[in-house]
Amino acid sequence: MRTTVGIIGAGPAGLLLARLLHNAGIDSVVLESRDRAYVEQRQRAGILEQGTVDVLRAAGAAERMDREGLRHDGIELRYARKRHRVDFPALTGGRSVMVYAQTEVCKDLIALQLKEGGPLLFEAEALAVEGADTTGPSVRFRHEGRESVLECDYVVGCDGFWGVARQAVPAPLSRVFERTYPFGWLGILADVPPSHDELVYARHDRGFALLSMRSPSVSRLYLQVPDGTDAESWGDEEIWAELERRFETEDDWRLERGPITQKSVTPMRSYVHEPMRYGRLFLAGDAAHIVPPTGAKGLNLAVGDVVTFARALTHQKETGSAQLLDAYSETCLRRVWQAERFSYDMTTMLHRAPDATAFEDRLQLARLERVASSRAAGTDLAEGYTGFPLD
Amino acid sequence: MRTTVGIIGAGPAGLLLARLLHNAGIDSVVLESRDRAYVEQRQRAGILEQGTVDVLRAAGAAERMDREGLRHDGIELRYARKRHRVDFPALTGGRSVMVYAQTEVCKDLIALQLKEGGPLLFEAEALAVEGADTTGPSVRFRHEGRESVLECDYVVGCDGFWGVARQAVPAPLSRVFERTYPFGWLGILADVPPSHDELVYARHDRGFALLSMRSPSVSRLYLQVPDGTDAESWGDEEIWAELERRFETEDDWRLERGPITQKSVTPMRSYVHEPMRYGRLFLAGDAAHIVPPTGAKGLNLAVGDVVTFARALTHQKETGSAQLLDAYSETCLRRVWQAERFSYDMTTMLHRAPDATAFEDRLQLARLERVASSRAAGTDLAEGYTGFPLD
Repeated sequence: MRTTVGIIGAGPAGLLLARLLHNAGIDSVVLESRDRAYVEQRQRAGILEQGTVDVLRAAGAAERMDREGLRHDGIELRYARKRHRVDFPALTGGRSVMVYAQTEVCKDLIALQLKEGGPLLFEAEALAVEGADTTGPSVRFRHEGRESVLECDYVVGCDGFWGVARQAVPAPLSRVFERTYPFGWLGILADVPPSHDELVYARHDRGFALLSMRSPSVSRLYLQVPDGTDAESWGDEEIWAELERRFETEDDWRLERGPITQKSVTPMRSYVHEPMRYGRLFLAGDAAHIVPPTGAKGLNLAVGDVVTFARALTHQKETGSAQLLDAYSETCLRRVWQAERFSYDMTTMLHRAPDATAFEDRLQLARLERVASSRAAGTDLAEGYTGFPLD
Repeated sequence: MRTTVGIIGAGPAGLLLARLLHNAGIDSVVLESRDRAYVEQRQRAGILEQGTVDVLRAAGAAERMDREGLRHDGIELRYARKRHRVDFPALTGGRSVMVYAQTEVCKDLIALQLKEGGPLLFEAEALAVEGADTTGPSVRFRHEGRESVLECDYVVGCDGFWGVARQAVPAPLSRVFERTYPFGWLGILADVPPSHDELVYARHDRGFALLSMRSPSVSRLYLQVPDGTDAESWGDEEIWAELERRFETEDDWRLERGPITQKSVTPMRSYVHEPMRYGRLFLAGDAAHIVPPTGAKGLNLAVGDVVTFARALTHQKETGSAQLLDAYSETCLRRVWQAERFSYDMTTMLHRAPDATAFEDRLQLARLERVASSRAAGTDLAEGYTGFPLD
C-alpha cells in the first residue's frame, strides 16, 4: 500500500488533515486503531476558536456546525460571588468562538472522508513509523488480523499522547517539557438546559467550576477535584450541591439541575515535545503537546498544526520549495507555546492548589479584578481565548 | 505635645504626607528615629510613576525633580539575546515615568518641611502607638534622651516594615499575606554613564539582570543572586563579567564598565497587612505592604496611600463626613493588590528560580514573546509600570 501522506489517527487532527490534503489534490491514507463507533462517541473538547471555524468552513466541513453549533460572543468570569462578562467581539474586533463538540466535528469529517476522500481504515493499529529520516518513510500497521506496511512520502502522527509516532524521534533529539497539576476535572453531562447562555468560569475557595453546554438541552459541567479522584465516588446529589456552592452569586442566578447521564474525570497536564518534526515524520495535535482543558486550546492547537502542514506541503507541491515544511516545527511551536502559556495562566488563575497560600488566593482575585477592570487585560484574555492567529 | 496628625517615619511617605497636610491647612508632627544624614543617604528606589510625579508637582515639591530627573518613555525587555522596547506613551495614551532617586525626593521634602512645614523631629524614636481605638490616639517616643507623648487626632504609621505602628493593630484583627523568594538582588552603583538610555530588564538562563541609572554619569545595576548572598563575596571583575553575560544581545550592544562605588544585597519579599486602618491609626507604605523591587512599585504605593489619607482627611474637614477615612483601607488595598500582582508577575517572568523546570523556562520566554507581539499584553504591562490610577 502506498500514498503521499500517511496519517496515523482519525481524531480531529488526522481527519481534518485528510480533508485539507484531498482539497489540495494530495492523496493520503488514514489509519485509526479504534472502530468508527468509538471515534464518534468519545467525549472531548467543545469550543472551536474563530480560526478553527474559518478552517472548517473553507474546507467544506462546516455545514452541520453552522446549523447546529452555538456561536458564543463571550464568557463569564465568576469570583467572590461577582460576575464579569468578557465580550469577545468588542475586545478583539469581531472574533468569537463556536460551541460544537469535537465528536460532532469527527462525525462530519468521517462522513465526508468516506463519501469523497481517500482511504480511512478503522481498526488499523499503527505499530511503528520506520525510515522517518529517509525519503521513503513507512508505517507498519495491523489490520484485519495481519501486518501491512503503508509506504509514504510523508508521515503525520496525529495519534495522540499515547501514540507510536512520537517514539520514532530518536531520544537524543527529543526534548520534553512537562507540568502536572495536583487536580483534575470531574465532568458530567446532564439532560437539562444550560443555566447560562455562555460558559461560566468560576473561581471559588472550594475550587474551580465550569458551566458549559453541548446543546440547548444538554449541560456540560465540571468541578475541580483532587488528582486521582474516582468519578463514581461522587453521588449525583453531592455533585449538584457542590456546583451550586461554587457558582454562587450575589444576585438571584440559579443553577438548574437535571438527570446526570455521564460522569468522568479528566487529569490535567501540560506537555510539549520538541521538535515536532523528524525527517519526513511530522507530529500534530496531542502527539506533540497537551494542554490542561481550561481555555479549550487542545483541539484548536491540533487544527493549527495540520493547517500548517497542509499549507507547507501544498507550497512544496506548487513551488518545489521545502522551506515551509522545514519550518513546520518552529512555526507550530510558536503557537503551541502561546497556547501553553494561556492554558497555564487560565488554570492557575481559576483553580485552587491544595497547598495554596492566602497570598496566592489574593493574587488570583487581583488577577480577576484586573481582567474585569482593564480593557488591555481583558483584550489579552479575549485574544487568547478566541485564538492565536494561524500565521 | 499635641497635633492633628502624628506621622511616624520621615521616609517619602511620611514626608510627603506632612507636605500634603500642610498644603491643606492641617497641622502635623513627623517623628523619625534616624538622623537627617542617614535619611538623606539611604539608597532605595528610583522610578517615579506618572501619578507620583503629578502628586509631587501639585504639592510644590517637584522643582529639582523637573530639573534633574530623567523622563523615561519606555523600558527594554531583553531575552534570548533579543531586545524589545515597551513604548509607554504610545501604549498608555501619553503616560511615562521619571528616574529620580528616592533619596533626592526625601532631600527635597525635608528642605521644604524645615523651611515652611510643621515640626520634623530627627532621632525621635517612636516606641508605641497608644489609644488607636479612641478619639485621642497618641505616640509615645524617645527624643533627646527622654520619653515624651505626642497627642493626636490621627496617627499615620509610615515607619516601614520594621516599625512599631503595625503592632498597635490587635493580632486577632490582623491578617498577613506573604511570599518570600529564593533570590535577592545584588545592586551596585558605578561611576560610568549608563550603557542604555532606558532601563533594561534582562531574562537570562543564569538569572535576571537590570540596568538602571541614578544620573547621566552614574549607573545602577543589579544581578539576581541566591537568597542570603553576601555582597562582598562578589569581586568587581566578577560582577561586570556576569552583567555582560546576562545582558548579551545578538547585535553589537556593549556594557560599559566603571569604578563600583557601592555594593549591597536586597532581599525579595511580597507582604500585605490587612486591614490598613485600625480606629484612628492608619498604616501607609512599607508599614503595611512590601513588594519585590521588580517593577519599582514600593515608593509609588506609599505615595498612593498618603494621597488617599490626605484626601480623606481633607474631605472630612470640609464636609464633616468620615466616609473616605472609613474607606481608607479598602481604597488603598485595591491598588496595593494590583501592584502586588504586577510586581509578582514581573518578578516571576524575569527571574530564574533555583528549581525552575524546562517547562517554566519556556513559559517565561512565551510570556516575553507575548508582551513583544501583542499590543494588548504590552499595554497591560505599560499600564502597570506607569502606575495604577490614584482613584
